[in-house]
Amino acid sequence: MAKDNKKMVAAITSMDEDFAQWYTDIVKKAELIEYTSVKGCMVIRPYGYAIWENIQRILDGMFKETGHETVCMPMFIPESLLQKEKDHVEGFAPVVAWVTHGGSEKLEDRLCVRPTSETLFCEHYSNIIHSYRDLPKLYNQWVSVVRWEKTTRPFLRSREFLWQEGHTIHETAEEAVIETERMLNVYAEFCEKYLAMPVVKGMKTESDKFAGAVSTYAIEALMHDGKALQAGTSHYFGDGFAKAFDIQYTSRENKLEYPHQTSWGVTTRLIGAIIMTHGDNNGLVLPPAVAPVQVVIVPVQQHKEGVLDEANKLYEKLKSCGIRVKVDDSDNSPGWKFAEYEMKGVPVRIEIGPKDIENKQCVAVTRHNREKLFISLDETLDSFAAAVSERLEAVRDGIYQSALENREKRTYACKTMDEIVKALADNGDGFVKAMWCGEEACEDKVKEETGVGSRCIPFDQEQLSDVCVCCGKPAKKMVYWGKAY
Amino acid sequence: MAKDNKKMVAAITSMDEDFAQWYTDIVKKAELIEYTSVKGCMVIRPYGYAIWENIQRILDGMFKETGHETVCMPMFIPESLLQKEKDHVEGFAPVVAWVTHGGSEKLEDRLCVRPTSETLFCEHYSNIIHSYRDLPKLYNQWVSVVRWEKTTRPFLRSREFLWQEGHTIHETAEEAVIETERMLNVYAEFCEKYLAMPVVKGMKTESDKFAGAVSTYAIEALMHDGKALQAGTSHYFGDGFAKAFDIQYTSRENKLEYPHQTSWGVTTRLIGAIIMTHGDNNGLVLPPAVAPVQVVIVPVQQHKEGVLDEANKLYEKLKSCGIRVKVDDSDNSPGWKFAEYEMKGVPVRIEIGPKDIENKQCVAVTRHNREKLFISLDETLDSFAAAVSERLEAVRDGIYQSALENREKRTYACKTMDEIVKALADNGDGFVKAMWCGEEACEDKVKEETGVGSRCIPFDQEQLSDVCVCCGKPAKKMVYWGKAY
Repeated sequence: MAKDNKKMVAAITSMDEDFAQWYTDIVKKAELIEYTSVKGCMVIRPYGYAIWENIQRILDGMFKETGHETVCMPMFIPESLLQKEKDHVEGFAPVVAWVTHGGSEKLEDRLCVRPTSETLFCEHYSNIIHSYRDLPKLYNQWVSVVRWEKTTRPFLRSREFLWQEGHTIHETAEEAVIETERMLNVYAEFCEKYLAMPVVKGMKTESDKFAGAVSTYAIEALMHDGKALQAGTSHYFGDGFAKAFDIQYTSRENKLEYPHQTSWGVTTRLIGAIIMTHGDNNGLVLPPAVAPVQVVIVPVQQHKEGVLDEANKLYEKLKSCGIRVKVDDSDNSPGWKFAEYEMKGVPVRIEIGPKDIENKQCVAVTRHNREKLFISLDETLDSFAAAVSERLEAVRDGIYQSALENREKRTYACKTMDEIVKALADNGDGFVKAMWCGEEACEDKVKEETGVGSRCIPFDQEQLSDVCVCCGKPAKKMVYWGKAY
Repeated sequence: MAKDNKKMVAAITSMDEDFAQWYTDIVKKAELIEYTSVKGCMVIRPYGYAIWENIQRILDGMFKETGHETVCMPMFIPESLLQKEKDHVEGFAPVVAWVTHGGSEKLEDRLCVRPTSETLFCEHYSNIIHSYRDLPKLYNQWVSVVRWEKTTRPFLRSREFLWQEGHTIHETAEEAVIETERMLNVYAEFCEKYLAMPVVKGMKTESDKFAGAVSTYAIEALMHDGKALQAGTSHYFGDGFAKAFDIQYTSRENKLEYPHQTSWGVTTRLIGAIIMTHGDNNGLVLPPAVAPVQVVIVPVQQHKEGVLDEANKLYEKLKSCGIRVKVDDSDNSPGWKFAEYEMKGVPVRIEIGPKDIENKQCVAVTRHNREKLFISLDETLDSFAAAVSERLEAVRDGIYQSALENREKRTYACKTMDEIVKALADNGDGFVKAMWCGEEACEDKVKEETGVGSRCIPFDQEQLSDVCVCCGKPAKKMVYWGKAY
């Protein structure tokens, strides 16, 4: 059985050797997904889907607490509807899948499978909004969308993916901007607190905005390999969509006005972010808040009298405290089990054998650092349950700290193009902080000459110098630059 | 404001006058759905979606308790994959929507939007099942599917609808049959206990089976107008799909064997069933278990000192007991509010005004029978909360009883074709119980001559006579017949 253990661990490519292959190995070996015969469309397997269910449950709670209601729009958008907002159709038409036939009948107006649902929400708003009394509407939906991507990777870029899309509509521009920022903050809080993933909050540059938005806010995270990943976006639309879709309401002053809109979304991409932020060469490392199994109990010498009984007692205690716990009493060896649950990223492993029982204790091992801690077992097991909860907290704090250190180590403040090139060459990919004049030409040139594109204009600005890193003219903003997933 | 009240109630067509229009009025006025520009595709609005969320939560819990895991398959099926099982493709190809282009590129193999996912599950099984150790797999997914129906009605028959589809695969035929029956029982329990909707459990005739199934089990409910509605189905597939998709496993005896499969589903159609089982001329009547708002508190003379405070105290108490409760302190009149929440089917209304407070009581009105009950308010409000819970139970029991009585009143045991025609003519649509020889020709003839088709062969058989109602040859089974939604 020790052989199996070695074989399994050996089967993952080292992340230092080939990060992309390491990623692919994990999504398969941890049984998160399986490929299908349609390129870019995957099966999300139970273990992967359970992570998404936990993400949904927590986020949905946060949405409802901030006053949002859940709706469900159709998956089809008539071509004529998609074309109503000019920038929007230009952005999305090239990547949509077209339904041309229903049964044996050819459709008059082709339907695209939604790549996003602004147009559907606008059509709906125009039907249900008449007066300021009908505002605001704070909506969200959990659905899948389709974008016909050329290059695909599980979770990171797939042709169909799961997401939530919030859509809101307000009396005033000010209210809509507040909403846009509020939801970006919800995303940031969710990522940091529950996914243990530090993020930079900021605004996208003009060239990187969502098709049809006045402004796009984003949270950006840094992966283990130094590449950036956009983890969530929140868009302020102004009244552009309202004008295109003729949505008007009678105001408090009894005048016809155009309302102001927002939309915001996160996707199953977050699962990719979890893998690349916290994973290691033994497999997945899951943040406790979204781990399908938070604690696995592995009995040692389980055939000996009393061992399974004791394991089951620990199980019952943790379960009664609301912890997602599992006992593995299969006939695989403890070594095989250790490797299996490390691969699956279970945050805490409890080992219990005859000696432990004799000493009234068990062993707790935290996944991220393999730290072993003896926990004593008293009569009620209350202090045991408290100690396990504390271990789960320790995993969350530990992996957050590691991710933050990785990001800090890989964030380079640069004043010249040469400094950017050198920092990346010397230290590897990462975030580059550099000043920018606001011109798209400079944005393009930085990307062309150094390989890093603008990620966002962070809310936390620093004055690194007075001039643009590229053209030397007066700088307007500090920008985070990076290579992106 | 009294005018508004009258206007709103008057705006619903009476169910006795035009049942179909009454139904359409309710789905719109109770804000369950809104139409879109794509025929047969609807927006499920917050109030409608919240009912679905409650259905999902309860059913998902029942699925997980019976050992099922949640997965997510892609929405696209390549034409070549759909064609692998002969009966299945014949059944579904005529009603699917076809994607022919991705972006600007024409697809080599057309993709259909899933009408159901057997083929996708089979492809997946063939990738992950190798040994008896990999069996059983007990899967479920919550997704939407598309069927290009000609005639569409909200919830009852739409081109896109939400559903869950369970898919399981087993070592033996026996295990698979047990699973098929287990899930039918889960559906029946769910409908009766939580939707307060009595159902008949039985088996579909050969001509009415799911495309590709060996046998199809169903639960059938009777709507208020005497038409039948298939509320859920559970299919046993034998090893037909396994053979078509070449799914084999190494058995305990080290031989290659074909596994046995099932699938089962319920849809947003259940919301249509709720409307037509429990609704009345004042609007929706919701079973408390799935009502988005279980209790609405309407303050009377709310501007008077202490009224809103007291209403809020009652709210806090019920909320702390896990009851979904709302206070409506808007400036609409109590009369308007009464009509509004009756339209929306809120099971219990609490009225509280200055006189009630003086008398240390409030009024509880149950939606289905408008019964008024005074509830006394003690210091802790514990007995108040208990009384409200009891009222919610009373609504569930009351509407179940009414639905059962309606079904019994409208179930006609008939021995001849003439008796069928007469029973329907005299008493209106309903379930007809009659004996059947098992021949499709007789099934067709009954439908042609009396208008009622076979709904199911119930598990609870009765021997009404020895001969087929149609041909007079020896009868094999008693069948429920009816007109179906």
